Amino acid sequence: MRTLNVNLGERSYPIYIGQNVLADSHCFLPYIKGRKAAIVTNETIAPLYLQRLIDSLPGKDVTSIVLPDGEAYKNWEVLQTIFDALLRDRHDRSTTLIALGGGVVGDMTGFAAACYQRGVAFIQVPTTLLSQVDSSVGGKTGINHPLGKNMIGAFYQPKSVVIDTSVLKTLPEKELSAGLAEVIKYGLICDEPFLVWLEEHIERLRHVDPESLIEAIERSCAAKADVVGTDEREAGLRAILNLGHTFGHAIESHQGYGAWLHGEAVAAGTAMALDMSCRLGWLSEAQRQRALRLLIRAGLPIAPPGEMTPDDFMKYMAIDKKVLDGQLRLVLLKQLGEAVVTSDFPYNILKDTLSADYQALAEQLGD
Amino acid sequence: MRTLNVNLGERSYPIYIGQNVLADSHCFLPYIKGRKAAIVTNETIAPLYLQRLIDSLPGKDVTSIVLPDGEAYKNWEVLQTIFDALLRDRHDRSTTLIALGGGVVGDMTGFAAACYQRGVAFIQVPTTLLSQVDSSVGGKTGINHPLGKNMIGAFYQPKSVVIDTSVLKTLPEKELSAGLAEVIKYGLICDEPFLVWLEEHIERLRHVDPESLIEAIERSCAAKADVVGTDEREAGLRAILNLGHTFGHAIESHQGYGAWLHGEAVAAGTAMALDMSCRLGWLSEAQRQRALRLLIRAGLPIAPPGEMTPDDFMKYMAIDKKVLDGQLRLVLLKQLGEAVVTSDFPYNILKDTLSADYQALAEQLGD
Repeated sequence: MRTLNVNLGERSYPIYIGQNVLADSHCFLPYIKGRKAAIVTNETIAPLYLQRLIDSLPGKDVTSIVLPDGEAYKNWEVLQTIFDALLRDRHDRSTTLIALGGGVVGDMTGFAAACYQRGVAFIQVPTTLLSQVDSSVGGKTGINHPLGKNMIGAFYQPKSVVIDTSVLKTLPEKELSAGLAEVIKYGLICDEPFLVWLEEHIERLRHVDPESLIEAIERSCAAKADVVGTDEREAGLRAILNLGHTFGHAIESHQGYGAWLHGEAVAAGTAMALDMSCRLGWLSEAQRQRALRLLIRAGLPIAPPGEMTPDDFMKYMAIDKKVLDGQLRLVLLKQLGEAVVTSDFPYNILKDTLSADYQALAEQLGD
Repeated sequence: MRTLNVNLGERSYPIYIGQNVLADSHCFLPYIKGRKAAIVTNETIAPLYLQRLIDSLPGKDVTSIVLPDGEAYKNWEVLQTIFDALLRDRHDRSTTLIALGGGVVGDMTGFAAACYQRGVAFIQVPTTLLSQVDSSVGGKTGINHPLGKNMIGAFYQPKSVVIDTSVLKTLPEKELSAGLAEVIKYGLICDEPFLVWLEEHIERLRHVDPESLIEAIERSCAAKADVVGTDEREAGLRAILNLGHTFGHAIESHQGYGAWLHGEAVAAGTAMALDMSCRLGWLSEAQRQRALRLLIRAGLPIAPPGEMTPDDFMKYMAIDKKVLDGQLRLVLLKQLGEAVVTSDFPYNILKDTLSADYQALAEQLGD
């Protein structure tokens, strides 16, 4: 088991990463102060891992809350069922919520913990690669609104994060690839040597090799912890973590939440950010293709939906959270391993990027 | 105009108190960083003061959001209408929400600000005496749940608080009295000299004398700021601010939100805490009657609803937020001007307090 500490002053917490850590009580009990705890999970994960987690909480009075599975349920109505169960079982302020599931479960449970009686403790047990490398660090929690993704939420830190790589064996291949989109992102925005490592290990990662996964997860979480540690509330630097996300959110909004996996939308969004970085003269065509090839080898799409027009993108990007006071800010790459956040680009270049033929490039590189 | 600073490190903020400060742009503009702002108010307050506030925000693009009036609307559905309006008018993270109204508007707007895009700025403009002395300090925000009051919320601090005493002229007498319940509370829990001052000024306060109100509001806010400054997240000391509230919340829950004014329920709850403090031998009968007389002179009830049984109280108190891990903690008085938080009392004494005949005492003292 490896331990990574996320340093946020009095809100610091450890991330435990290893095979079968779900069965290790020591990852949980020190972080549950009261007699009660509530595990929030979903219909897919519950039959696989709920009992294993309950067995790791000896002596605790545990409420299990099983949500429907999917991004479509990341809304107020489903969040309300968490509050209903907590109140019904008389959980007070000393309770601890445990999120057992992917990003949706983690975001909703974290937000429920942030709001229930104005804030109770919570522990993250992410069960998808995406949530293990993305949601484990940063404290972003929330739900969707019909007009925008993650529009309602809070910055709220867990007491600990427990990442068990053995649960990835039951993760669908498509979702493993989606997680790799975020892993590759860390290489692209701040760690070129990690990109080289990923080019060497991408097949092992796709075959769920434990040692490779532990290494990739630890490096990803450490990269994110570095960025978040200097900018907890997303005032500036932290925005580089959103590489591919502004375009990606537009894709998700247009297609309807859940139609594309978040990681898939991020991959296509990253391809668009790479395109724009080339048009601005920051990346060479060779660099762009190197990055795109890694995304393809990870099993990811590098083209947005063919039917999406530039106007569709503009419409959904105009209410993106990263729009600051009317200015569209985008995360682009100065080079592989160095991201910048900028609103200083000609509008025409953005238009060209929104109109480019990604499908043709995908076919060319995919050959 | 008087200025009181609430010291909470990087979350510190000023409270401006005075006649007609609502018309003073300098109380608002320095705290609105972006181009946009949204005023959240209710149907009662909007015709009286909304335009006056808009006039104090020159150069800002202002969205007005008018909610139905009353505690019954302090729920998710109404909160959602705030988010709907913000998204419809494309408010981004740089927006500022301004709460213009009483406690319900303040709690909901503060919670909306805490959650909208994971947190935007907000300014409180409390328009009832209760919210001026209570909600201005402490950062408590939230909404009700069918199973409990304020069960969903956040600790979230405003950028500034603007208290205009001239708006109290249009406040119904009953609501002014309800506000005085919280003012008297500060005297009871931590400031015996303030109790003496209140005994001398209670009639002037009820007649909306500006100078007396400014003094009472400032002393109340200062007392609360002292307590909150040492315990922002209600880990310990801050709980003394809940004198009368555990009993009071039970009354409000039993009667249905809005049937009793919060301040009225707190007054009757305070009478019960005084009763219990006497039974424990901490207060003399003379001290109790001195406190009760002041509540009566303020126009407040000192008896819970006649039909509420001890079992009713127990039922509603069992899911009170101040129940810590199964132990009922109550705020009681060691003497006038000194509160304690304790779970160390014989159950029988609590039962006696829940069964006591408050109506008889009210009739005796009211003569």
